[in-house]
Amino acid sequence: MSAQVQLANDTLLRALARRPVPYTPIWLMRQAGRYLPEYTTTRARAGSFLALAKSPALATEVTLQPLERFPLDAAILFSDILTVPDAMGLGLYFAQGEGPRFERPVRDEAAVRALAAPDPADRLRYVLDAVREIRRALAGRVPLIGFSGSPYTLACYMVEGGGSEDFATLKRMLYSRPDLLHRILEVNAASVASYLNAQIEAGAQAVMIFDTWGGNLSTAGYQEFSLAYTRTVVSQLARERDGVRVPVILFTKGGGQWLEAMADSGCDALGLDWTTDQASARARVGARVALQGNLDPLALFASPDRVRREARRVLDAFGAEPGHVFNLGHGISQHTPVESVEALVDEVRAYSRKMREG
Amino acid sequence: MSAQVQLANDTLLRALARRPVPYTPIWLMRQAGRYLPEYTTTRARAGSFLALAKSPALATEVTLQPLERFPLDAAILFSDILTVPDAMGLGLYFAQGEGPRFERPVRDEAAVRALAAPDPADRLRYVLDAVREIRRALAGRVPLIGFSGSPYTLACYMVEGGGSEDFATLKRMLYSRPDLLHRILEVNAASVASYLNAQIEAGAQAVMIFDTWGGNLSTAGYQEFSLAYTRTVVSQLARERDGVRVPVILFTKGGGQWLEAMADSGCDALGLDWTTDQASARARVGARVALQGNLDPLALFASPDRVRREARRVLDAFGAEPGHVFNLGHGISQHTPVESVEALVDEVRAYSRKMREG
Repeated sequence: MSAQVQLANDTLLRALARRPVPYTPIWLMRQAGRYLPEYTTTRARAGSFLALAKSPALATEVTLQPLERFPLDAAILFSDILTVPDAMGLGLYFAQGEGPRFERPVRDEAAVRALAAPDPADRLRYVLDAVREIRRALAGRVPLIGFSGSPYTLACYMVEGGGSEDFATLKRMLYSRPDLLHRILEVNAASVASYLNAQIEAGAQAVMIFDTWGGNLSTAGYQEFSLAYTRTVVSQLARERDGVRVPVILFTKGGGQWLEAMADSGCDALGLDWTTDQASARARVGARVALQGNLDPLALFASPDRVRREARRVLDAFGAEPGHVFNLGHGISQHTPVESVEALVDEVRAYSRKMREG
Repeated sequence: MSAQVQLANDTLLRALARRPVPYTPIWLMRQAGRYLPEYTTTRARAGSFLALAKSPALATEVTLQPLERFPLDAAILFSDILTVPDAMGLGLYFAQGEGPRFERPVRDEAAVRALAAPDPADRLRYVLDAVREIRRALAGRVPLIGFSGSPYTLACYMVEGGGSEDFATLKRMLYSRPDLLHRILEVNAASVASYLNAQIEAGAQAVMIFDTWGGNLSTAGYQEFSLAYTRTVVSQLARERDGVRVPVILFTKGGGQWLEAMADSGCDALGLDWTTDQASARARVGARVALQGNLDPLALFASPDRVRREARRVLDAFGAEPGHVFNLGHGISQHTPVESVEALVDEVRAYSRKMREG
């Protein structure tokens, strides 16, 4: 993009910079997803989840769908968390009803030595094309958030070969060949940094690092195998584009015990899962970072009235001081009623405006 | 039991009372289990896991098996976490490779109203018979730990009908009909209290409450739906038998953010999962409770040397002051090499003795 389009709604960016906002901005993890009938229709047209994620035109279409329904304050790139290892040649596929898998998991010395950071302009071009196309389609309505899995979370899938309850294969490598895991994490950190920088270059106005599995580590292990590499990524990111700050949000699911360390990683904001108490999170990180979260996604199974009540509880707990972005504590469930999302977005907007006026 | 047998090894009880001990006592969650070939043999003889758990003679046999191999400082009753809802008539069964399920989950008002606390002397007699038989077989070598699932964790399985990634059915009830969930939790609290008291009466010398799923709640939700009912249970327990204190250990997997509140529940000790930093846990709970834990169970996949190193790290982090019981941060994996357990138990004994001498 040669010129930065003026944003009609920059509430998200201001809140991430802990500057005053008239109301608390809201977006939802996995907001473009299966709970929306129009998403299901587009996905059926694409043929598969991966075909959808790999088509810039269709990814643009689904990225914008939730914004047509709800007055959300951000769009988030529709993509998969595992695009990077797929671009490394590991062969991402989705087994029926089983989640992501790799044809060629990275389990021995030879596989680790063969790993190399992919050039995003080459094997991840479809993502960058999607970013550009989404920015054009948004035309400055709200900012676009880019994202990547964290180096550790990518390694979990790469070594295990897919999702897992306890990631025993990954842990076996961690405890018996930590040198191999460190090598994978180095490659992943370089890959994630260049991938996120390419997204920023293509137009992402904020980026989020999803550390979905960092919470399966011990405290010392989290520092050594997850946070250290996330810090490397953050330190290598372009943090400004056309004179505007590009904030970085770090989310570690199950990371509530480590917020102080996460806040010192160089990021601008922390995503909180739903288990973390809002007021103590704020007290622990002080004014160092903004906080994003953290309604239990399954609270959206309640009646609209109860959803509104739960939303007010979260807003009250964070308080009216600058630096809160409303979100769920994890991705929205595919079984969520659309009316619940309507009630949530409406209540967050109205109540948070009132909080600031009162 | 008419008379308290003098214990040959009461290190566990002394550590749980935060009194000085010559070395750090150790036992392992799920120490009688599938990683032991002799367990697999007995289970095959029983025909099924449930038949094994329901036979006092076979439960006694497997409870003692790990003690024959390793110099552990406690035995723990071999039983299932779901005996109580099974005794309520919910029809516990194990689907091939799928974990526990209930034939009649508790999902509507009628099912909730029909729930009643079972009389342990009647429908759970096989557990009490096992406790008595194990005590006889132990003959005072080490103390026997009894246990139960927490009221909330039992409710998770009862409403969901089995295990789950997110317990969406339970959460739906929690957010849309909290009155029904509270009613289930009341019945569960009464049931768990009388079940644990019956185990104590039959000879259990310490009891542990496993809150396996409390960590899926928000902080406020944990207080309201899990800890409040655990507190009710703890307040109703017989805490002394024949003049000897019967300590209560509370373990909430994923509860590392809530240790202060857990320490105020009336229990004697907290079980820590492997994600919690030992030194900060101690600083947060002070001298109120003993701490039990918390090596990552998958660290046992490493070489014996590395296992010893990891054990020393955990011991060093807890320090030599009284009030630590060594354990894993979760149940031992069925794929654990027996040599790892040998190395672990040996190192904990030797190194913790040296720590106290040095």
